[in-house]
Amino acid sequence: MSNPDRHIHPVATGNAAQVVAKHDAPQELVFYAGWFCPYVQRTWIALEERGIPYQYKEVNPYLKEKHFLEINPKGLVPAVEYQGKALYESLVLCEFLEDAYPTNEPKLLPSDPFERAYTRLWVDYINKSIVPAQMRLTQAQDPEKQKAALEEANKALRTFAAEAKGPYFLGDNFSLVDVTIAPWVARDYIVREHRGYTREGVSALWKKYADHLEKRPSLVNTTSERVHYADIYGRYLRDEAQSEAAKAIRAGRVIP
Amino acid sequence: MSNPDRHIHPVATGNAAQVVAKHDAPQELVFYAGWFCPYVQRTWIALEERGIPYQYKEVNPYLKEKHFLEINPKGLVPAVEYQGKALYESLVLCEFLEDAYPTNEPKLLPSDPFERAYTRLWVDYINKSIVPAQMRLTQAQDPEKQKAALEEANKALRTFAAEAKGPYFLGDNFSLVDVTIAPWVARDYIVREHRGYTREGVSALWKKYADHLEKRPSLVNTTSERVHYADIYGRYLRDEAQSEAAKAIRAGRVIP
Repeated sequence: MSNPDRHIHPVATGNAAQVVAKHDAPQELVFYAGWFCPYVQRTWIALEERGIPYQYKEVNPYLKEKHFLEINPKGLVPAVEYQGKALYESLVLCEFLEDAYPTNEPKLLPSDPFERAYTRLWVDYINKSIVPAQMRLTQAQDPEKQKAALEEANKALRTFAAEAKGPYFLGDNFSLVDVTIAPWVARDYIVREHRGYTREGVSALWKKYADHLEKRPSLVNTTSERVHYADIYGRYLRDEAQSEAAKAIRAGRVIP
Repeated sequence: MSNPDRHIHPVATGNAAQVVAKHDAPQELVFYAGWFCPYVQRTWIALEERGIPYQYKEVNPYLKEKHFLEINPKGLVPAVEYQGKALYESLVLCEFLEDAYPTNEPKLLPSDPFERAYTRLWVDYINKSIVPAQMRLTQAQDPEKQKAALEEANKALRTFAAEAKGPYFLGDNFSLVDVTIAPWVARDYIVREHRGYTREGVSALWKKYADHLEKRPSLVNTTSERVHYADIYGRYLRDEAQSEAAKAIRAGRVIP
């Protein structure tokens, strides 16, 4: 049986298509992306925020195209090719951009060692507590399981929002914590429409944080038209998605 | 019912007891540790390798002692108190030590941006692929599941060892990749004695890497006597352990 995830819309649309069009010239850094992927969007936001020159290349990770597999045998996006060598993993890439482009502003990690560590702690929290809870909520089929998953997802977001200084997580400065959660904020209408989630149902603090974050230009400008996400998220909502992340959630494993 | 994990040996023994004895004086950095915990040992190795002044404080995380919970409400070890503020998560702490003590040698992260990212990629691989596979193997009860878990654990280690340049993962320099996996190398006799694992059964490359790594003084000197680990790992081998990591593996969740 063919993998239905292979038949996704082939290119970015809407705002994101305009950003892609501006990044077709060859550059030292090639950004391998899937327009629909929230992990990709993290790295994309970091590139846009910091004004780093990059060439955008759309890859359908399910098709495992030959050149891409030569660059990145794991076949995952996001990936970057930098001076002929490949790197991957969304947050490893964001940290790489901090290290490799130290003069590009703004920095997404504070300069103070304690504050850097505090930032990484909450990035880790999003990865371990918020993202898996969101995915379990999206993929849950049984109404009782959906209810439990909603409570768990809300609790994780509530804990996060209670620590946010506002308007961004660390205060006035947009940081890697905001980058890490932003793609899930941009997609939370999916669980609102299908799983009974509301921002105010989490907490007033979460609603305030999310309502503000979703207007960030780097997030808005790397987001495609909703109609094309609907095709993809329909498969998650029916628990039919075949992405590595979806399969991991189904099997009770770590998202790779 | 009382939590059996609370009744662990209260202090480090053997080589580790000597290191603890040298670190009882107050310092700017207080290291909250559990002598038995492999995550603790990562941060402990980083402190020892880099000659960072620290005060060692033994905490039984299952007892949730009052002063410790005030410092770190999550109640997890390892944690550090630095200028009156708390940080936790073993790898966040290792990166913090790099940032906060930039003149202490050796550095555990290379200075080149690409090499730093490559190091973080393999640290991530250990966390997502190797550690959960080791825990599933240790906790598996059914013989068929043990067999499948052994194959999965061996495969993850084989992939890792095939990338190691030798003698350490990045070559001649001991790095954060070696720190991250070292505590599991020091404990692999447990699955050798109880689950049919052997280093040579993984691959010749893995045996060479692990046999060399286990002699690293910072690993040897932060390891206690085997008899006391046996009490703890017996509960893992019977799948009765109540640590957050053990419960996560049992429930098919991310290790917190």
